[in-house]
Amino acid sequence: MSSAQRKGAPRLFVIDNVDPALFSQTIAFCEANGGLEKTLFNVISKSGETAETAAQFMIIRDMLKKKLGNAYAANIVAVTDPAKGTMRKICDAEKFVTLPVPDGVGGRFSVLSPVGLFSAAMCGIDIDALLDGAKAMDVRCSRENLLENPAAMLAFLLVELGQKYGKTNHVMMPYSNSLYLLADWYRQLWAESLGKEQDTAGREVFTGFTPIKALGATDQHSQIQLYREGPNDKVIGLVAVDDFGTDVTIPTGLGVDALQYLEGKKMSTLLNAERRATEFALLESLRPNYTINFPKIDAYHVGEFIMLWQIATAYAGMMLNIDAYNQPAVETGKQATFGLMGRAGYEEHLKTVESALAPSRWVVKG
Amino acid sequence: MSSAQRKGAPRLFVIDNVDPALFSQTIAFCEANGGLEKTLFNVISKSGETAETAAQFMIIRDMLKKKLGNAYAANIVAVTDPAKGTMRKICDAEKFVTLPVPDGVGGRFSVLSPVGLFSAAMCGIDIDALLDGAKAMDVRCSRENLLENPAAMLAFLLVELGQKYGKTNHVMMPYSNSLYLLADWYRQLWAESLGKEQDTAGREVFTGFTPIKALGATDQHSQIQLYREGPNDKVIGLVAVDDFGTDVTIPTGLGVDALQYLEGKKMSTLLNAERRATEFALLESLRPNYTINFPKIDAYHVGEFIMLWQIATAYAGMMLNIDAYNQPAVETGKQATFGLMGRAGYEEHLKTVESALAPSRWVVKG
Repeated sequence: MSSAQRKGAPRLFVIDNVDPALFSQTIAFCEANGGLEKTLFNVISKSGETAETAAQFMIIRDMLKKKLGNAYAANIVAVTDPAKGTMRKICDAEKFVTLPVPDGVGGRFSVLSPVGLFSAAMCGIDIDALLDGAKAMDVRCSRENLLENPAAMLAFLLVELGQKYGKTNHVMMPYSNSLYLLADWYRQLWAESLGKEQDTAGREVFTGFTPIKALGATDQHSQIQLYREGPNDKVIGLVAVDDFGTDVTIPTGLGVDALQYLEGKKMSTLLNAERRATEFALLESLRPNYTINFPKIDAYHVGEFIMLWQIATAYAGMMLNIDAYNQPAVETGKQATFGLMGRAGYEEHLKTVESALAPSRWVVKG
Repeated sequence: MSSAQRKGAPRLFVIDNVDPALFSQTIAFCEANGGLEKTLFNVISKSGETAETAAQFMIIRDMLKKKLGNAYAANIVAVTDPAKGTMRKICDAEKFVTLPVPDGVGGRFSVLSPVGLFSAAMCGIDIDALLDGAKAMDVRCSRENLLENPAAMLAFLLVELGQKYGKTNHVMMPYSNSLYLLADWYRQLWAESLGKEQDTAGREVFTGFTPIKALGATDQHSQIQLYREGPNDKVIGLVAVDDFGTDVTIPTGLGVDALQYLEGKKMSTLLNAERRATEFALLESLRPNYTINFPKIDAYHVGEFIMLWQIATAYAGMMLNIDAYNQPAVETGKQATFGLMGRAGYEEHLKTVESALAPSRWVVKG
């Protein structure tokens, strides 16, 4: 769950899990701060059949009906298939305001559609600037000259290092708390697009790379020992910020010699020094790394970053000769869940799952 | 930054980064909610010389002095070396209340000392129960029979899979938002202890494993495709919870056939079904995985979990024949930071770093 707030803008909670404690706490917060009547629920589901989203939708629909009676539908905006599927039927019947999930755009590529844009706009984010940045990057990433095409270069380096040099772990380490969750977006894009058992000719390849997120400077104290001295199986991507929008100056007056060098310095100077020190240390250990630079954190630059990685993923998929746009391996878990939840028609799945998992429990006495 | 709150307990913010936006927002929140006079700052630094902690300390000390005058020291509690070092001198001179970082206990092994216990106790966490759980697990993990010693078994399986079967990525995937940050604690413990260039005989080994955190059920939609069909280089550790302390029931009445199976079910039932479905899917793909079970989330069980992993780390270090308690590779970055920040005596470091990093910038035109 993340909570983002700009002055005067609504508070956004992303309830992207079916953890009952998380869910209850979030609802309780809304009830204590304006009430459910002041809460808009944005339900995002192309089909409406993903169990977690469906369950949450059913719960909040019932809560809103109890609270608001027939007016409940005004507190729901759905982003879903424009024409077909379970959620579309529900939206039409219950008269929810809806926005479309565009055809041909899979979930992990959809953040620049209403899937991401609606809640961004509701939070006061400049979605025109976001899309302008994405568009500008799209132009750059269509160039034929490799050295002038950032997405092609990024994909080429990561695929080459991954395939030929055994660097299959691809770390993203933003030196900024604000950008840290972008690494979660990257993790799904890079993992789910490229982690494929078969190539486009049907050959078994088990290819792909493992995206890993880390936070600078915090994880210097957690991961750099491993990144420098552990297995040499990583590419470390640092994300730098020049202008944080605000800064804090370390004051003078403590009078301790060992800390005098910090006096009068800006906190952003220290954070960026830590980042360059990390880059230097990785270089000393001959551990491949790159840095992506944000001049500032705003919608335009985030839009550029998103498009850079979406297109890099497309190029990487082409280089790996796999389908970057499907995710066949998630079906097994979905069907097993249906079976375990007692869905009609999935009785055989239930039996299979229960007998497969039966022998797996080891209990330590005492 | 994390914010944790129990009814009636203080709100805890962990400012574990020198991001000026994070820092400013946290201070602004405190100022707007009770004021700095109602804010206690817990400074945790054995030596006092870690640049990030020192910088933050200097800033808040100055803020408190400006706000509270001579009474400022009452709003600071330091956890530091009991006898020596820069922070000890400062604490003695300024008369802060202090608690000791015990000798011989490195940072990543110190959460069950005042380093972690003070803020836990301030939040109303039952630290006696926490330590009771740790103690009970310590007894189990001292047994000589491997099959009755959970830490030895865990370490043995992970080291064996890592060393002999190429499964060097060790995922921890709690099916609980509350337990997700425990995975960050694990990441430092497992990465920094075991990622070592040299063994105890001075031979070059570059050993260790890469801990990776994931969240269930959220990351099923992000990582499971990779975990099942990507490179077979992982052990996936699921963390299960039986009792979340609260639950939410999915209501009846929607009247949609495809979703009928969810009606009347508890959210925790769905979350645990998703977890078992994931376990099943990994098993189908022959991807090694294990599950650690929390009967409930409370101090006792968290204490058990912490001790389990601390001792497993010790055993793993012995099996890998390395020193699990040092972290030599972090020195380079520290000294490079001193150089970049202009610390007296580190002028050569500054020159070295700047010339090493100079040729590394590639700018794409337009």
